Amino acid sequence: MATKSSEHYVIGVDFGTLSGRAVVVRVSDGAELGSSVHEYESAVMDKTLGSSGKALPADWALQDPQDYVSVLKHAVPGAVQAAGISSADVVGIATDFTACTMVPVLADGTPLSSLKQFRERPHAWVKLWKHHAAQPHADRINDVARTRGETWLARYGGQISSEWELAKGLQILEEDPEIYHAMDKFVEAADWIVWQLCGEYVRNACTAGYKGNLQDGAYPSRDYFAALNPDFAGFADEKILHPIGELGSRAGGLTAEAAGWTGLPEGIAVAVGNVDAHVTAPAAQATQPGQMVAIMGTSTCHVMNGEALAEVPGMCGVVDGGIISGYYGYEAGQSGVGDIFAWYVNNQVPGSYFEDANKAGVGIHEHLTNLASKQAVGEHGLIALDWHSGNRSVLVDHELSGVIVGQTLSTTAEEGYRALLESTAFGTRMIVETFRDAGVPVTEFIVAGGLLTNSFLMQVYSDVTRLPLSVIDSDQGPALGSAIHAAVAAGFYGSVGEASEAMGRVKRAVYMPNEEASKAYDELYADYVRLHDYFGRGSNDVMKRLKARRRELVGHE
Amino acid sequence: MATKSSEHYVIGVDFGTLSGRAVVVRVSDGAELGSSVHEYESAVMDKTLGSSGKALPADWALQDPQDYVSVLKHAVPGAVQAAGISSADVVGIATDFTACTMVPVLADGTPLSSLKQFRERPHAWVKLWKHHAAQPHADRINDVARTRGETWLARYGGQISSEWELAKGLQILEEDPEIYHAMDKFVEAADWIVWQLCGEYVRNACTAGYKGNLQDGAYPSRDYFAALNPDFAGFADEKILHPIGELGSRAGGLTAEAAGWTGLPEGIAVAVGNVDAHVTAPAAQATQPGQMVAIMGTSTCHVMNGEALAEVPGMCGVVDGGIISGYYGYEAGQSGVGDIFAWYVNNQVPGSYFEDANKAGVGIHEHLTNLASKQAVGEHGLIALDWHSGNRSVLVDHELSGVIVGQTLSTTAEEGYRALLESTAFGTRMIVETFRDAGVPVTEFIVAGGLLTNSFLMQVYSDVTRLPLSVIDSDQGPALGSAIHAAVAAGFYGSVGEASEAMGRVKRAVYMPNEEASKAYDELYADYVRLHDYFGRGSNDVMKRLKARRRELVGHE
Repeated sequence: MATKSSEHYVIGVDFGTLSGRAVVVRVSDGAELGSSVHEYESAVMDKTLGSSGKALPADWALQDPQDYVSVLKHAVPGAVQAAGISSADVVGIATDFTACTMVPVLADGTPLSSLKQFRERPHAWVKLWKHHAAQPHADRINDVARTRGETWLARYGGQISSEWELAKGLQILEEDPEIYHAMDKFVEAADWIVWQLCGEYVRNACTAGYKGNLQDGAYPSRDYFAALNPDFAGFADEKILHPIGELGSRAGGLTAEAAGWTGLPEGIAVAVGNVDAHVTAPAAQATQPGQMVAIMGTSTCHVMNGEALAEVPGMCGVVDGGIISGYYGYEAGQSGVGDIFAWYVNNQVPGSYFEDANKAGVGIHEHLTNLASKQAVGEHGLIALDWHSGNRSVLVDHELSGVIVGQTLSTTAEEGYRALLESTAFGTRMIVETFRDAGVPVTEFIVAGGLLTNSFLMQVYSDVTRLPLSVIDSDQGPALGSAIHAAVAAGFYGSVGEASEAMGRVKRAVYMPNEEASKAYDELYADYVRLHDYFGRGSNDVMKRLKARRRELVGHE
Repeated sequence: MATKSSEHYVIGVDFGTLSGRAVVVRVSDGAELGSSVHEYESAVMDKTLGSSGKALPADWALQDPQDYVSVLKHAVPGAVQAAGISSADVVGIATDFTACTMVPVLADGTPLSSLKQFRERPHAWVKLWKHHAAQPHADRINDVARTRGETWLARYGGQISSEWELAKGLQILEEDPEIYHAMDKFVEAADWIVWQLCGEYVRNACTAGYKGNLQDGAYPSRDYFAALNPDFAGFADEKILHPIGELGSRAGGLTAEAAGWTGLPEGIAVAVGNVDAHVTAPAAQATQPGQMVAIMGTSTCHVMNGEALAEVPGMCGVVDGGIISGYYGYEAGQSGVGDIFAWYVNNQVPGSYFEDANKAGVGIHEHLTNLASKQAVGEHGLIALDWHSGNRSVLVDHELSGVIVGQTLSTTAEEGYRALLESTAFGTRMIVETFRDAGVPVTEFIVAGGLLTNSFLMQVYSDVTRLPLSVIDSDQGPALGSAIHAAVAAGFYGSVGEASEAMGRVKRAVYMPNEEASKAYDELYADYVRLHDYFGRGSNDVMKRLKARRRELVGHE
């Protein structure tokens, strides 16, 4: 048995799309002492179902819940070992997960995919967040809600996603009713993993609100569900209704079995489940109203606390206690950011740039950024719309697409690249201004995620938004955020806000707006808005016509 | 002395931007028997003046007229030798030239650049067609014409180009008045070269009309010129007024001196001068109203005869007898076509495409075309505006720029390439429809120029315009066209139309519109028109704002 020291530690585990990462964090100051990553054996099943080898239809994305347990068995002890601490000094564990990722289970939490009779049935498996095959169901969910004037729709910026609980549940009912009826509960993976750790099913406030349509303590009505499909009337009551746990609360104590998996002491605090983007707010010390956190990667997720409830057009959702208990948690998003830059690099950049980057010993993105950064604002003569992957906030329209205006025979590849960088900053400013106009002001912009290493991009965001820009001071923001929740659940801090102050890590105001650049960007932004409204608000639906024609010819994308 | 045979031959000489090409053509059937090219020693002087080594300002482009004479001395005998004919059987010679290319001369035709006292003065040299430094002068020429309500302006689609005679003349007056006053005549190179051949200055109807503002037998009034600058009042009367020669007429007989240069018989017919694009019409047997010839290269020039005089919005010009004596000759243009495709290939196509093209043993344009041609119409989900080099017809606005709409994360480089190919076809349809709407119907589309080798592009043009598309059956269209004029001037045919029937070469209706593709393109074209009018007709002047900002930062482009 390991001996106890005077220090206390917590474990944060971040369950991503392809792997889980565990980090050991010191309770007193948030120091990250060691980490370990474990990849999911079945990864993402989007072509064939592993158990049967049979092809899956387009837009499916499944996972095996046993892969999540493997992370507990390998990454957690691995992190403890890497940290060089005694596991006896670990006082709590917390997790965050991709969302909305759903596990169909029996009443005791057994995944249907573990049952022999269902193993070859695709709908028995975990539907990963990016399972997009429920789009027709989501379309009906939205149409019926609009027709009936459902008031909760405005809490989601006017649109429920195909990724969320209702759409995924309705798809199961209508495509494999036997599975639907065999499923006692339809559980967020964020909660299922906590159930495995502490033996208790506690439904976390974050996903229940953002992904499960829980608003003001209630799900949509039986009548509404029945209007979608008579057999769906009991969806909320029977499949997703469950007592709610506040974020940072103790869900239970680590079971003997989970202690065996992880090597951690039995009975230590297991925190209520949470979501990757949302735990990043306290990791970046962004718990106060007005502090908007942007997790910038392939896409960007924005989370921010607000004092009051407001209906912000085009937000992803607002949930009471959705980020930090006691505040309204707002979420917004840009559906394409880093993936637009990656698309451009892969499809629109000549080989000579790669050769030059290679010679300079830098990556292609860094090389293009260096070249582009030498120009003055607007020197490229371009404006782009950042809708290559559609537009989440504030237009909530995935039928939109990218635009670039202003190319001449002297336009270079790096100029196009810069225009795309800027377009995402303009998209962010549109979100910030929409929040402000709805009475939810943004006063600080805090960046987490992979793109924060591009300092030119960060300066552009600060110049364009005219906000001080802070950056998280951790490479493992979500896992650190989970660890903060573990420390609160273990009783070492009175609140997530308090723990965030002690354990979170941020470099404040690293980038400040440059007045001259901001003025020039103001003018370009005015043109961005004009194009945004022209193409995005119905003046010219050319993008929808183009996509409809393409879809007709090549099938659903 | 060479012996005469029963066959007769003519020489066509095409003076291009960098070289001159002579072709020997058989009078009876237009067979091209031999050709020779001679490059201009001084090429294009656009950085420094050769005689002084001094730098030239931006946008200048000068040439040395002695280089044109060298073509007569080398390319003409070279072509005769290559043809293996006897020079004694040559019965005429004709030339075509770039336009508007202007030579300032003394009363006897001596170029001012040949005079020792002026050799180091830039304004004494030939101003090549692409000398664009007279833009401020052209702006005033247009402003004053609009203010005064000059009726001739509509004959030029509402705008006089900085490339034309008035702008080039006004620039000389205002920047080097001594040269202006020393210049007895300001002569089109098309006419100067004929002057060298036959010792007579004959002003051809084509350039006098299209480039010199001669309409209904008159130049703009003295009052108009005086309004530009009091010292410019006599510009027409003193510098450019001269008896007009109809196209295909005999300007004179070959002088002894020119016979010495060329090795051709003294006294043979020398035809009135002409322009490269315009002589291509008879070369392609396109002499009838409704037969639109498009010379498609880096840019496209459209020429067509019409029965009646009409004012077509955005045309380059309409000139009585400007293409074929007896018809109104219409000219229009697309300022960027092949150069847009070249820009894309050089700036927006990944190295892997070049590697694959190399492996397949084809050029990059052919490779991209092959890939793009596999898709159905509209499958790429894109629409582009072909304004990377501005828009000549029908908007006459060089402050416009390129646009591409509809990019997604799955858009490939070949899809973007195809969208650009199509955009130029849409631009052509816009011209065809504008002519039709102005009462000048287009019934056949005949392509000459380098792009005709791209059969996919040709099919797109036919599908988009719903016109039968014919292609010229000669690699040296302009020189063949000149040879046709030489045959008429020598009296072997009664008219250019008659000679064209016998000597011109065209493959008729090689491409016919495919109804299914045409229907799909109709829909895309409707969206092209919507974007064209939105960006091009004042709804959103974003392109002008972007260009103005860029110009402010980097100077004039």
